[in-house]
Amino acid sequence: MPQVTPIYGPTNPTPTQAAKASVKYYGSVIELKPEMEEKYRKLHSEVWPEVTAAIAKAHIRNYHIFVAELAGKRYLFSFFEYTGTDSEADFAGMAKDPTIRDKWWPLTDACQIRLPGTPTNQQWLAMEQVMHID
Amino acid sequence: MPQVTPIYGPTNPTPTQAAKASVKYYGSVIELKPEMEEKYRKLHSEVWPEVTAAIAKAHIRNYHIFVAELAGKRYLFSFFEYTGTDSEADFAGMAKDPTIRDKWWPLTDACQIRLPGTPTNQQWLAMEQVMHID
Repeated sequence: MPQVTPIYGPTNPTPTQAAKASVKYYGSVIELKPEMEEKYRKLHSEVWPEVTAAIAKAHIRNYHIFVAELAGKRYLFSFFEYTGTDSEADFAGMAKDPTIRDKWWPLTDACQIRLPGTPTNQQWLAMEQVMHID
Repeated sequence: MPQVTPIYGPTNPTPTQAAKASVKYYGSVIELKPEMEEKYRKLHSEVWPEVTAAIAKAHIRNYHIFVAELAGKRYLFSFFEYTGTDSEADFAGMAKDPTIRDKWWPLTDACQIRLPGTPTNQQWLAMEQVMHID
């Protein structure tokens, strides 16, 4: 991935342009273990306040997770906006939050199957943007 | 789909709650013909002004399309926000726009493979939301 070279233009900013924007958009995907779907849904219907606080502290907002079945497998799709100025530091800070690191992610990771091609330091696989219209 | 009953709560609004919110969120998916990917990317890197105008007129904003490969197939993922008060009328109005109906959609539909389970009056298959954090 990608099989095709990215094409940028007025309605698909280059990574450099996107990095300079005040809001940055992240879309990513991971497989969902069917036998864990009910647990995953339950957890995400009432995300713990410590977790939502850590998300807000990391300047992440408008955070959606969707589920869909494709060719007989269940997948989760995540979309969020980042409004800070140092995503590396903010995401690392969130990853060090004790509730997230030691309690929340162990529960959610156990529901997921990482996809081929996902970098070793990431859980979810980034999707590539092909269009953005404000 | 869904194999599992939806679970709603503080971080996953019911459809009734979501319908009452001032901003409504739509996530959807469709398969992409690999041989049409370059054409699809080119079209979406410079969406025609008539098309972006019709999207804005329909009260659709923050419209992203992503691409990802899952189990050897290419898929497109769409995410947008709707800020109007009558989505049925607004989406129907967009579908009647001559540029969209007669020129844009014939081009983009030819790049896509509708997924099993997609209602006959829709091109993309809606994904189900499992979490939303503002």
